[in-house]
Formats: sequence, C-alpha cells, structure tokens
Amino acid sequence: MLLDIFLEQSGQFLSGEEISRRLNISRTAVWKQINKLRSAGYEFEALPRLGYRMTEKPEPLDPAVLSACLTNRSFGHQIEVLRSTTSTQEDARRLAEEGAPEGTLVIAEEQTGGRGRMGKKFYSPFGKGIWMSLILRPTQPLHLTQQLTLLTGVAVRRAILKTTGIEAGIKWPNDLLIDGKKVCGILLESANEDEFVRYCIAGIGISVNLKEEDYPDELKSIATSLRMASGHNINRNELICSILNEIESLYGLYNEQGFEPIASLWEASSVTMNREVCVQSPRGVINGTAAGLHPSGALLVRNEDGELTPVFSGDITLQR
Amino acid sequence: MLLDIFLEQSGQFLSGEEISRRLNISRTAVWKQINKLRSAGYEFEALPRLGYRMTEKPEPLDPAVLSACLTNRSFGHQIEVLRSTTSTQEDARRLAEEGAPEGTLVIAEEQTGGRGRMGKKFYSPFGKGIWMSLILRPTQPLHLTQQLTLLTGVAVRRAILKTTGIEAGIKWPNDLLIDGKKVCGILLESANEDEFVRYCIAGIGISVNLKEEDYPDELKSIATSLRMASGHNINRNELICSILNEIESLYGLYNEQGFEPIASLWEASSVTMNREVCVQSPRGVINGTAAGLHPSGALLVRNEDGELTPVFSGDITLQR
Repeated sequence: MLLDIFLEQSGQFLSGEEISRRLNISRTAVWKQINKLRSAGYEFEALPRLGYRMTEKPEPLDPAVLSACLTNRSFGHQIEVLRSTTSTQEDARRLAEEGAPEGTLVIAEEQTGGRGRMGKKFYSPFGKGIWMSLILRPTQPLHLTQQLTLLTGVAVRRAILKTTGIEAGIKWPNDLLIDGKKVCGILLESANEDEFVRYCIAGIGISVNLKEEDYPDELKSIATSLRMASGHNINRNELICSILNEIESLYGLYNEQGFEPIASLWEASSVTMNREVCVQSPRGVINGTAAGLHPSGALLVRNEDGELTPVFSGDITLQR
Repeated sequence: MLLDIFLEQSGQFLSGEEISRRLNISRTAVWKQINKLRSAGYEFEALPRLGYRMTEKPEPLDPAVLSACLTNRSFGHQIEVLRSTTSTQEDARRLAEEGAPEGTLVIAEEQTGGRGRMGKKFYSPFGKGIWMSLILRPTQPLHLTQQLTLLTGVAVRRAILKTTGIEAGIKWPNDLLIDGKKVCGILLESANEDEFVRYCIAGIGISVNLKEEDYPDELKSIATSLRMASGHNINRNELICSILNEIESLYGLYNEQGFEPIASLWEASSVTMNREVCVQSPRGVINGTAAGLHPSGALLVRNEDGELTPVFSGDITLQR
C-alpha cells in the first residue's frame, strides 16, 4: 500500500517512478492515491526530480489515548468517537433523550452540517479540529442556563492556555478569539420542562490544525486556528482531555460556590470587558461600555448616562 | 349495526330480546356489543324489562367543527387530530423540529404515555379530555420562558370560565384547581440555543368529561373534571377553540405590552396569592406567604422577617 511505503520511508523522498514500480501502478495512479491521502489529512512535499516526501500524518481522535489522559472522575468517560456525522449536537441530543448520563461526550473527525448560533453554519473539516458535544444535566433552574455558556468558555480558554501556551480572549457570550480572530465557538443547547432543565448540550468547536488555505475565502479574514497561532500542530487528544478536566473542575466549583467565582474568571479573561460595544439584541441596538456580568450571566452595558442594562442575548461588535 | 339501531331510536328503550332478534345475534352478543360501545364513550341506561336506552354519545374531536369555531388569526389553524398517541408533546416537538409554524396544534383523543411535570404520568383516557400541545416560537429570551407558562394558565382559565361558567383557580405555577382539586395541568417545554428560544411546546391537559368512576383510585381524592363540577358534559371542540382564541389574544398582548398585564391577570385569578405556602424547591424548602410575581415570572415568597425570595421552580403546598 502507498501509505505503508511512506511510513517505512519516514520523511525521506521517494520518486514517483520508484513508487509506480514498487506498487506496479501507473504514475497517474500514484498521483491520485497521494491526493486521496492528502484529503485524509496526510501532507506531502513534492519536488521535481526528488519526488514525494510525507511531511505530516494525521493524529486521529483516539478513545484509548483520551481515556488514558483523563484525570477527572466522569466527564468524557462515556465517549462516542465518530468519523463523520451531520452534527455532534444532534447525536448528543439523541443520546441525552435516551438517558445518557452527565459527562457523555460525542466527538467527530468531521461534521457535514455543523451548526453555530442563530442557525449559522459551523465549518468543521475532517481531522483538523475538535468538534464535540458534552451532555450536562445541571440542577440550576432554566433562567441561569447562560451561566453554563460562560463557564464553558472559561474552561476551554484555560485548557488551550495549559496545552498550547496560547492566550485566547473571550468575546461575550461564547467565542474565543486570538488577535481578534475566532478560534473557537461554543453553543449551549438546552431542553426544558418549565423551569427544570432536562439536559444541556455544550457544543464546542475549535479550529485546531487548520492552515490558512484550509479555510473557505469568506472565513479567511475572521477565523484562525491554534496551529496558525502557534506555528505547529497541536495534539487534539491532549487538548480534549484538558478541556474535559477543566469543565468538570469548574462545574464542580460552580455547583459548590455558585456563579461568582466563574464570573470573576470570565471577567479576567474576556476581551469584551471595558470595551465600547454595540449589541444587536432582539430588542434593538444597545451602545455602551461592557461593564461586567450580571449575576444571571447577562452582560451589563453602561450607557452614556451611566445606566446599566443587562443584555441577555445578541450579537456584539467590539468598537475600536 | 347495533349503534345504528340505538341512534334511530333516539333515547327510547329497546329490549335485549328485540335487539337480538333484529340483529340475529344472541343476548350475550348484544351485551358484549353494548359494553364495547360503552368503552368507546357511549352511555346506556339498563332497566329490567325495559332494556337499554342510549343516554349519551361521544362528541369526537372534529377538525371541521374546530376550524369553524376559531375566530383568531393563526393559533390552531394548522392542526393534527389523532385518535391515540403516546404523547402530544412528542408529536408537537417532532413537528417543531421539522419547522412547523407557531400556532400549530396537536390534539389526541387519548395519550398512552401522557407526561406531567418532573416525569410524572398524566392520566389521559380516551375521549374524555383535552390532551393537546401548541407550538410557540417566542422572541423573548430564554430566561423569561416562565412567563409563558403563567400566560397559558391564565388563558385556559379564561376559556373555561367563558365556555362553562366555572371559576377555576391557578395554583403556581401551572395547575388549575376547582375546589382544591386539579382539573388542568400545563407543561411548557422549550428547546433553546444559548439565550435564544427555538420553540416552546405548551402542553395542556384538561379533565373535561370524566366521571368519578373514570379515575384510578389514587387520583380520586385530588382530581376533578369540568363535568363533575358542572354536572353535565362539556363540548370539547368549543372549549378548545376558546382556549386557542384566548392564548392568541393574551400572547398578542404580551408581545405588545410585556408581562405586566399578564402578571396582573394571573395574580387576580390565582389561589396561591396571599396564602401560606411551603415550596419544595431544588435549593431546599421555603416557607412563607405568596406575595405576588417577580417580573421574571418567579413567585415571590415573603418570610417571617418580611424578606421576599423569588422561587423559580418547585412543588408548592398551600397551607390551611
């Protein structure tokens, strides 16, 4: 097999002629197989006369590596790893409806219909990112659900910092940015009966090992990845474990001490705080300065007259 | 057919012998067929020597009658009438996920797995009640969802009053009582993305034409029906229309003027107000006097020291 030949060769060049001879296939067939491997996440340098050299092989999501890395008690101990799925949110929702316990995780190499907030698409190409959904069964009443969105953002930021050294900033409510570009989106879906939360699905999408050329044109100016920020590939299995450890740890703190310590952590790592913001909320446009978090998790915006308005939902633009 | 003979006879007695002769079946077969009709909602008086007389025939849910009664613009104009289903909530949820518009109604003659709050069963026998689920797509943020539960309770109470003259009282958050016994339960389920409500399903279950003997023993002391309260059968199609008209009208008021007018209506028709209450909430037991509604829809409970605590969820007991 072509892949075996390259793996044996460990980084050395192989000419197309040599490969074609060893596999007894045409040069065109060699080229086609290399492109197939490329689309599966393998990378090759191709040079005239020298031929091909494998420069990178994908590091697949691996339940065994994951469970070896987990130091927590429950989050991620039940895990479903998928090669491709429409949306891990849908899979996790189905599992939650079937009674899956808190901490159950669904993760996929690729989402073909990844979703962001407000019905937007979420770009989730094969093997390049962390596209995952975690089932929570919180005891807090419905109207405090926003707090869990913020908690998740803080946890993912901490995991990225610990694993890669990269300091992402949190843009209210749930985007992580590096140098103003989005590297992670969080979407918390909940299913409720009156004020009782049946379950939440915390959807986390992180652009890990994408290169600039991996993005469609419309995303190039607004999106970035951990690889682009750090200059090298990041081990996804390690990062996932770190995220699960951080979420479980903050969630425990939250259940013991309430939202206040989470709010402090959020305020300390937010790029929204003390900035001039323009919020497009369902109730109209609100301009002012982001002044902190309301105890419910809403963003407090101070207008020119010093009045504070809690903003519960909306799209926010940071002004210069 | 046996039914045709009784329908022709319009309330007159027919002897078993006569029926057995006209249908050319045995007396035992007559008796069996009458019992079959009874379980389908028909009622018979049986007297020695005179025989049988049909005293009541079921009034089935009828989409044609329903749509003729509706005076509103949209709620209930898309309707699915089912003979039997597990739970109209599940059916409505499926329709909502498929994109059904606000105001879509699912109604069933019988639920085999009707659900109440906190996973409790909801008794929903064939032909005797209103077991229905209405799809709402509110624009209010998630943390105000409780307000819609209260709005629904007010609307159903008004419809019952207008249609039957019976004054039910609202027990916070969403039970309707007659003389301290439950006649209607309301369950509002919501599906959300962050603070954005994708849809709500307002589940409404009303015991309309049940007689005391229709209830299982464990419900006899705590449940009642509109028939038991009024002494006669109530036309379900008319009541359903009235409910849809009331909900649409209050919902319009709510969208224009906010929760305040709804809260006033609720407070005026609640049996919880100004009563000593004991609340079993997820955060512990709260004792005090029900003092009114918090602007979010929570119940304000005043303790001995005069402090007000908003209660968002829980089971409430009214003290003597």
